[in-house]
Amino acid sequence: MSLTDNDWYVEQWEDGQSSIGLRLTEAAKVHEEQSPFQKIAIYDTQSFGRLMTIDDLVMLTSRDNFIYHEMMSHPALFAHPNPKRVVIIGGGDCGTLREVLKHPGVEHCLQVDIDERVTRIAEMYFPELCDSNNDPRAELAFIDGVKWMEEVEPGSVDVIIVDSTDPVGFAEGLFKVKFFKTCLRALADPGVMVQQSESPLFHSGLIAGMHKNLKAAGFDAVNTLHFPQCTYPSGWWSCTMAGKHVDPGKPRLGDASEKDFPTRYYHADLHRGALAVPVFLREAIDAE
Amino acid sequence: MSLTDNDWYVEQWEDGQSSIGLRLTEAAKVHEEQSPFQKIAIYDTQSFGRLMTIDDLVMLTSRDNFIYHEMMSHPALFAHPNPKRVVIIGGGDCGTLREVLKHPGVEHCLQVDIDERVTRIAEMYFPELCDSNNDPRAELAFIDGVKWMEEVEPGSVDVIIVDSTDPVGFAEGLFKVKFFKTCLRALADPGVMVQQSESPLFHSGLIAGMHKNLKAAGFDAVNTLHFPQCTYPSGWWSCTMAGKHVDPGKPRLGDASEKDFPTRYYHADLHRGALAVPVFLREAIDAE
Repeated sequence: MSLTDNDWYVEQWEDGQSSIGLRLTEAAKVHEEQSPFQKIAIYDTQSFGRLMTIDDLVMLTSRDNFIYHEMMSHPALFAHPNPKRVVIIGGGDCGTLREVLKHPGVEHCLQVDIDERVTRIAEMYFPELCDSNNDPRAELAFIDGVKWMEEVEPGSVDVIIVDSTDPVGFAEGLFKVKFFKTCLRALADPGVMVQQSESPLFHSGLIAGMHKNLKAAGFDAVNTLHFPQCTYPSGWWSCTMAGKHVDPGKPRLGDASEKDFPTRYYHADLHRGALAVPVFLREAIDAE
Repeated sequence: MSLTDNDWYVEQWEDGQSSIGLRLTEAAKVHEEQSPFQKIAIYDTQSFGRLMTIDDLVMLTSRDNFIYHEMMSHPALFAHPNPKRVVIIGGGDCGTLREVLKHPGVEHCLQVDIDERVTRIAEMYFPELCDSNNDPRAELAFIDGVKWMEEVEPGSVDVIIVDSTDPVGFAEGLFKVKFFKTCLRALADPGVMVQQSESPLFHSGLIAGMHKNLKAAGFDAVNTLHFPQCTYPSGWWSCTMAGKHVDPGKPRLGDASEKDFPTRYYHADLHRGALAVPVFLREAIDAE
């Protein structure tokens, strides 16, 4: 069978003037709906399993989402000395929630995503990501995460994970000083926040700006971690972590190396490795 | 200007059933020729600079080749205690040669690529990669690298870098025990060899097989390093390193952190980080 058989899902990225294609099965698009907030679609691919897009942008695939979800959760939880109360802003596919709840010390994890349909569709098409949704420690709220953060009791959260879409439209505010200040206030002392921060290759300026904004908001220390993410622009992604009276650059690697839950990408040495960002990114951050 | 303007270079990967696209300028394809060995083409892209393809597969772009070339050279050279004599098999674009010659201790670097046209075209379209070609320590030979390795004086090389194309056709033999045995014999004691080893996501079986074959050939220790490479299949790439009476897992990181030449991706902490391969890849290697 030649590669030109069947259809392809192709996404063109304005940043980087490049594109990715995933070859579909004959089933092709298996779901599409317009929620009150966005267009959500599910495709069946030949080699990446299920694909979820939101407003025609790749959110995740069955094959490679484990890297993103593990890197958005375990480094932050091992950066905090004793995380019990975790909040996820966004993350409606529930993959980050599942990883967080692998940590036996976590007592409560609240996922705040404005769009309930993302979660309901994930339950249908990515059930493996949702198998902790009924954990008694899990709570799902379908409300505005920015507003929630403004109103939450100060000092009531140990770790905040901002698992958002790209910084355009609704999500743009999530990258600004004003939002970071509400996160800092929401955090207990010590506290850690982590946020997805786009491609090191395409968005080094955005990452440098986040470092500046997080420090301007009052965080003590900021670190970016990098990791592959094959179906995101440039195939290379990052998260940026900030500490309130804790240094995310000095995580509990001893505990990480003795963790008693399975992962497919993350381990302690890899955590340390992900903290070592390339020279060009270090220079962009230092120049900001 | 909309993203659908102008043409795109699109490459579909059988492995992974996925594709990458790079948007071209109006100039589009600026060179194409059939050498005695392969079809070589040069394109002008909107955001990745120049693109070289061989037989319609991406070899390199101006924008992201620094990651590959730095990771193919510096980790191997810092894994060897005192590399003076280096041989590159393949690498006709001269980017690896340039990185090797940044090491002041290297006395001689021989690049053995069968196809002189690759080098001549790189000199025209990627002159920045060729600016060490006239270094008195550089020697370029346009002959068969496998045959060269069979005939070279045993124990005469400190570091071998196999900067080859994918393991199909001509390059397939480069991944076999027979070739690795000739490399082991060519190496001095201690000696290090490193070889590009494809995508961790798409080719974990090939990487595991290389570990097995390198050990079967008689190497003492084998390590895989991983790094982003945006324009290669899956956007994530690897090299695999083998030691003759030296452990590539214990490089001279002190020297690496005090290196007195510039890099854009590589530094000592990142070298250590690249050695930490993901759980799923470690498991695939251990299962082989």
